[in-house]
Amino acid sequence: MAQNGSNSTVKLLGTWSSPFALRGRVALHLKSVEYEYIEEADVLNSKSDLLLKSNPIHKKVPVLIHGDVSICESLNIVQYVDESWPSKPSILPSDPKDRAAARFWAHFVDGNCFESIDAAAGAKDEAGRMTAAGSLIECLAALEEGFQKSNKGGDFFGGQNIGYVDIACGAILGPLSVIEAFSAHEAVKPYMPTVAEFIEFAKQKFNV
Amino acid sequence: MAQNGSNSTVKLLGTWSSPFALRGRVALHLKSVEYEYIEEADVLNSKSDLLLKSNPIHKKVPVLIHGDVSICESLNIVQYVDESWPSKPSILPSDPKDRAAARFWAHFVDGNCFESIDAAAGAKDEAGRMTAAGSLIECLAALEEGFQKSNKGGDFFGGQNIGYVDIACGAILGPLSVIEAFSAHEAVKPYMPTVAEFIEFAKQKFNV
Repeated sequence: MAQNGSNSTVKLLGTWSSPFALRGRVALHLKSVEYEYIEEADVLNSKSDLLLKSNPIHKKVPVLIHGDVSICESLNIVQYVDESWPSKPSILPSDPKDRAAARFWAHFVDGNCFESIDAAAGAKDEAGRMTAAGSLIECLAALEEGFQKSNKGGDFFGGQNIGYVDIACGAILGPLSVIEAFSAHEAVKPYMPTVAEFIEFAKQKFNV
Repeated sequence: MAQNGSNSTVKLLGTWSSPFALRGRVALHLKSVEYEYIEEADVLNSKSDLLLKSNPIHKKVPVLIHGDVSICESLNIVQYVDESWPSKPSILPSDPKDRAAARFWAHFVDGNCFESIDAAAGAKDEAGRMTAAGSLIECLAALEEGFQKSNKGGDFFGGQNIGYVDIACGAILGPLSVIEAFSAHEAVKPYMPTVAEFIEFAKQKFNV
């Protein structure tokens, strides 16, 4: 695969269970960037020196290490990859209004949607789970409406091609009309963990 | 003032006490965009039909209304303004690495810093206030370090010119070495509420 944005080496520090790390991998794949993927081996119990050094503020994967610069936060990484390798296909749309809509919905996924998912997964009783599930369903309905409004004919958020919002939400959100096309995409399929793997991880994370 | 990105009318829906609305005003001023400022009169007790219609998801100011499109979320508005009126001065830096750093720190302000500020302001006792204040001081120290690393000689985050991170953090965060230059800037000064006005607003918001 060719690099056309820079000759510096590219590494992505991630962990298999992270939908945020998946975003970075998908973006790099879409841009045909040659990179080394480094698995953060035991993210629940310890953090590697490389992670602590490259993301000292948040100490979280993913981190994109490009030459001597570290880029943290998954949506930031996706935008950085889009801007650093500007050859087609573009990940964000070109029109400022469409870009603003894409950033709005991606931010909505990371804020409202993930808050509901975390609340549902971490709820200690049935009532808590039901409340969180209700919030999540509301979020998904809003996202679906946003998808219908933004869609210009195609399987993805902005139209025919996989883009920023698909990368933001496609990694985890099932009940959406974008999900089937997203999961089957050749940039996504190799990195998508199985349901069984997710369940085992969730059991460890939430001590259930 | 000239519009060079679009001939559509521009309106900004805000409220005087909102540091997020201030961001939109500063960005529009920097780009010399002619716009109508609409004050959301009583944001604590009721929301206008215009606000509910233009930001149905979050129902919060600021909203930039450009022709028939509404742009929500303050950092999204700042990026939109930067991209829609691409004439100089640019708000975000041009280099993708600098842009990623700017987005990282702006996101840090909206996440970590504002969480600490809200926790401190809403704390019900001294212990809660002290904990939140400690978190805020840690955030400001991290931001100050980021400022020192990113600064290329000048009073602002990226150097000589006011930019994205300054707009993100300059509206509210006093104990930073950028604040004096930010507050005195001709794009900021007319819109910065007084300390007395902020105190009165905080009393109402947190019932103290």
